[in-house]
Amino acid sequence: MSSFIQVKPESHFSIHNLPYGVFKHARNASSPRPGVAIGDYVLDLSEIHSAGLFHGPLISGSDCFHQSNLNKFLELGRPAWKEARATLQKLLSSDEPALQNNASLRQKALLPMDEVEMLLPVVIGDYTDFFSSEHHTKNCGLIFRGTDTINPNWFQLPIAYHGRASSIVISGTDIIRPRGQGHPAGDSPPYFGPSRKLDFELEMAAVVGPGNELGKPIDVNDAADHIFGVVLMNDWSARDIQAWEYVPLGPFLGKSFGTTISPWIVTLDALEPFACDAPKQIPQPLPYLAEKISKNYDISLEVRIKPAGQEDSFTVTKSNFNHLYWTITQQLAHHTVNGCNLRPGDLFGTGTISGPQSESYGCLLELTWNGTKELSLGKTARKFLEDGDEVIISGCCKGDGYNVGFGTCSGKIIPSLP
Amino acid sequence: MSSFIQVKPESHFSIHNLPYGVFKHARNASSPRPGVAIGDYVLDLSEIHSAGLFHGPLISGSDCFHQSNLNKFLELGRPAWKEARATLQKLLSSDEPALQNNASLRQKALLPMDEVEMLLPVVIGDYTDFFSSEHHTKNCGLIFRGTDTINPNWFQLPIAYHGRASSIVISGTDIIRPRGQGHPAGDSPPYFGPSRKLDFELEMAAVVGPGNELGKPIDVNDAADHIFGVVLMNDWSARDIQAWEYVPLGPFLGKSFGTTISPWIVTLDALEPFACDAPKQIPQPLPYLAEKISKNYDISLEVRIKPAGQEDSFTVTKSNFNHLYWTITQQLAHHTVNGCNLRPGDLFGTGTISGPQSESYGCLLELTWNGTKELSLGKTARKFLEDGDEVIISGCCKGDGYNVGFGTCSGKIIPSLP
Repeated sequence: MSSFIQVKPESHFSIHNLPYGVFKHARNASSPRPGVAIGDYVLDLSEIHSAGLFHGPLISGSDCFHQSNLNKFLELGRPAWKEARATLQKLLSSDEPALQNNASLRQKALLPMDEVEMLLPVVIGDYTDFFSSEHHTKNCGLIFRGTDTINPNWFQLPIAYHGRASSIVISGTDIIRPRGQGHPAGDSPPYFGPSRKLDFELEMAAVVGPGNELGKPIDVNDAADHIFGVVLMNDWSARDIQAWEYVPLGPFLGKSFGTTISPWIVTLDALEPFACDAPKQIPQPLPYLAEKISKNYDISLEVRIKPAGQEDSFTVTKSNFNHLYWTITQQLAHHTVNGCNLRPGDLFGTGTISGPQSESYGCLLELTWNGTKELSLGKTARKFLEDGDEVIISGCCKGDGYNVGFGTCSGKIIPSLP
Repeated sequence: MSSFIQVKPESHFSIHNLPYGVFKHARNASSPRPGVAIGDYVLDLSEIHSAGLFHGPLISGSDCFHQSNLNKFLELGRPAWKEARATLQKLLSSDEPALQNNASLRQKALLPMDEVEMLLPVVIGDYTDFFSSEHHTKNCGLIFRGTDTINPNWFQLPIAYHGRASSIVISGTDIIRPRGQGHPAGDSPPYFGPSRKLDFELEMAAVVGPGNELGKPIDVNDAADHIFGVVLMNDWSARDIQAWEYVPLGPFLGKSFGTTISPWIVTLDALEPFACDAPKQIPQPLPYLAEKISKNYDISLEVRIKPAGQEDSFTVTKSNFNHLYWTITQQLAHHTVNGCNLRPGDLFGTGTISGPQSESYGCLLELTWNGTKELSLGKTARKFLEDGDEVIISGCCKGDGYNVGFGTCSGKIIPSLP
């Protein structure tokens, strides 16, 4: 399968991908609209819909591509997602004339990616952050409690906490260094000021589709139908604030100052060729978490830091989505087993995705062992993030001659307000 | 001040109160609208606005009372809230003819309260639950850790966690008993099934007004301008699920199956006559939490349980909002000090409001000391809630010959789905 649009071999956005986002263009600055990425272009789905090129019954009669977010499309569910994908793959393929040979429609509907501004693709009602990498969990235990013994509940259920939805921002948004309290030294009052231990967390996040009514759990074997796709996520963390506040109710202000997601939602359908076995789980999960088919995805992840004032960026970790112990479908089934309702656009962070080797740790807390050693970045070094540092996460699945990639999820630290 | 509408002396909804809610009536079943409560009536604010009776500059030109929620009104801020309150108190007073002598408008705009269905008054973007009663915190320590020594961070900052917004329901909604995992006995797998330790929590919740931009904290002395008012809240809790899951990231499924709020938001302006000194805080709060004037409110709270199959309800606790250690303005300033943004309609739960005596404890966990003793309810008794039990919270401020009350916040437990 190839597209009439030239896609460079290194592009993340081949015709096999077609991730969804929401963009603004000078031509429609006041009305953001959904699009898919193809090579160096964004295809404006509202134009394609208006041109009558969605022939399938589920999309043709819907106004979901004339919205300023994807929530209505997500609510339609997997049959509509499959219909839209089939239509778009055909429309963009090299042997299909409908768009290829219609110069005026191409002019309207295919916008150079460098001319658009990407926005949050969904309205996020609730955001949940899981804690599903065994390596990350083990390292946190070693760093904070001096033991790699993981609490037994961790192996029985996907541990999670509710996050803050209001402060989720799109890739490229600056992150203001948070102020807050840190541990007191001895009997003195707590430290108060700009965080001294600002960190990134390499995560991905699943975007929820139709969801469920309050009181009606989703079966783990139906859970995939409620996940539209996946984005990259940086769960910025102020380790000093977090360490002082989190007992007994968990992370709060150490996280809620900002969470960055990438603009393009890569669908589970596009990820399917990269599915791989999930890790064997011991003890065996309880029946409500036992999946007939338990899938992870082989998604290579990389974090680079561009230190303040420098031109070059340096790779600080390489990890993979397949290091997760709990699958995203298990996370979803667990989240609803008590009757909790999910709504279209809800976000599930995976938790920091660390691999087994130190080069695959997903945050500075682990990479610098809570600031006890420095991480070299060319001519400089870091224990935690400094003002002006930019963190760039990327993720990609490598196919045979094509990529299904996520682009990047980036953010630069700017100083605390006075 | 008295109203031309007869208000019974025991009514919660005197002309001094005028709490805001959103209702549906048979006449406008498909379009919910804002109203205020007065005696046994609801005043339809969209009718009053359409009749041109809001003369003030901030409300007359706004469509905030033609919305299906109060968010737009909340966004307008305190000057608009004061203008609306002044207009409505005058309009409803016994010496004002505009509504009193307009029979056709009265017919349209004054609806008997028993004919309307109350809905969630706001769209809640994010819900945060604090942990601000010292007595509750102390009791939890004694029950779970055998010590009444409170962790030192508790006295330095208002501890809180992010809650689940999607499962917040309006008073009167049935609560389905959640299923979930409980602690394993010895080496066996965890318990899985309907919660065996279902509890209520007596709370109140502040409703956020204009809020702030990401990165721009709200000063504690300006915080009151960002709180529109207060509701009653029952933060239903499954203690067995909570106890097993909460280490290390805090409460999750033990809470997210349902949270009930009362329909009428009592404004801070209406509560002002009942302001009282907040408790002296030792150690002195850090400067960002130090208020020029630190206020609590004298709001009598009561919880009754109507056991399954019985006609009578029994008072199980009497507490007061003024038992809170941290004020709601300190909670708000703390919440934003890291730059976290608040949006109109966000909800801040106080945490369980327990007083010092056992008759004032705010949940069954404390009242039955985690099920180690029974709570007598007439001819029956309870350790935790059983299917069919109804929990009714009420709250009221007693003025000189009038009340400023909250009505009730109720919910009945129904069995887990098979």
